[in-house]
Amino acid sequence: MSRLDSVIRRLQAQRSCIDHAIALVADRPGPVFEVGLGNGRTYDHLRDRLPGRAIYAFDRQVAAHPDCIPTGQFLVLGDARQTLRATAASGGRAVLLHSDIGTGDAAANAALAVELAPVYAEAVAPGGILISDQPLAGPAFEPLALPEGVAPGRYHLYCRR
Amino acid sequence: MSRLDSVIRRLQAQRSCIDHAIALVADRPGPVFEVGLGNGRTYDHLRDRLPGRAIYAFDRQVAAHPDCIPTGQFLVLGDARQTLRATAASGGRAVLLHSDIGTGDAAANAALAVELAPVYAEAVAPGGILISDQPLAGPAFEPLALPEGVAPGRYHLYCRR
Repeated sequence: MSRLDSVIRRLQAQRSCIDHAIALVADRPGPVFEVGLGNGRTYDHLRDRLPGRAIYAFDRQVAAHPDCIPTGQFLVLGDARQTLRATAASGGRAVLLHSDIGTGDAAANAALAVELAPVYAEAVAPGGILISDQPLAGPAFEPLALPEGVAPGRYHLYCRR
Repeated sequence: MSRLDSVIRRLQAQRSCIDHAIALVADRPGPVFEVGLGNGRTYDHLRDRLPGRAIYAFDRQVAAHPDCIPTGQFLVLGDARQTLRATAASGGRAVLLHSDIGTGDAAANAALAVELAPVYAEAVAPGGILISDQPLAGPAFEPLALPEGVAPGRYHLYCRR
């Protein structure tokens, strides 16, 4: 598989998982947390599919397309290990959290996911959904079946117990 | 359509056009020119689909993934307006040229395409195929039908007359 094939599959898996998770939380109130704003593509997707929903985006710094930068308190800059807790306290725990933190460094990705897992467990409301580019482990996370067409391990879905 | 939807459609269109063009030139000898190496994704796709074919990649500087950088004379750095002519003279005119030069600046993209069109006309052998993210104009370029599923204007295919 070429890198072009691979990125298409990854983005399709990401979209399928996000759309599936959005359907799962459709009838539940609460904010959405986007961890890793990056270029803003999935933030744009979330706000397109969830008009009127409070969506907080977290990153260390802004590198997003100018059209895809949240305004006011919905852009939260800093270390997510601190900022998520504060935002959950002030704005409510998330009904949906999308975590896209991966870089080219697989070992660093895995280490960061281990550090973030307990933070996500606090930041997401019980019954809320986590979508993650990295596997998450811990008693708080119940793995959910992936939507059709998404290969196991390509993306990850959990329900916060 | 969200930016996530949009990038998936763009990459699918790119891959469909490249695969279609590869089939069109399967029985013709000659090198392949990749103009705009970028992150190396489409270069990786071309070499995956065309094992054994000479593939020259052109860019101003190298920003590709380390696994996707051509070696030796197949990496051509500099201004494509000069380097393409020299490579066509030394390595032969291309049977297939893929041009992916777009940035976020639509006016600059269009201006660069106007400058590159006559260079492409010289660099591609008669009967060769051009795949381009920008429209190309001029008597040398016969527009070809896009493969199924690619919306008009999303990507561009030409035969060098």
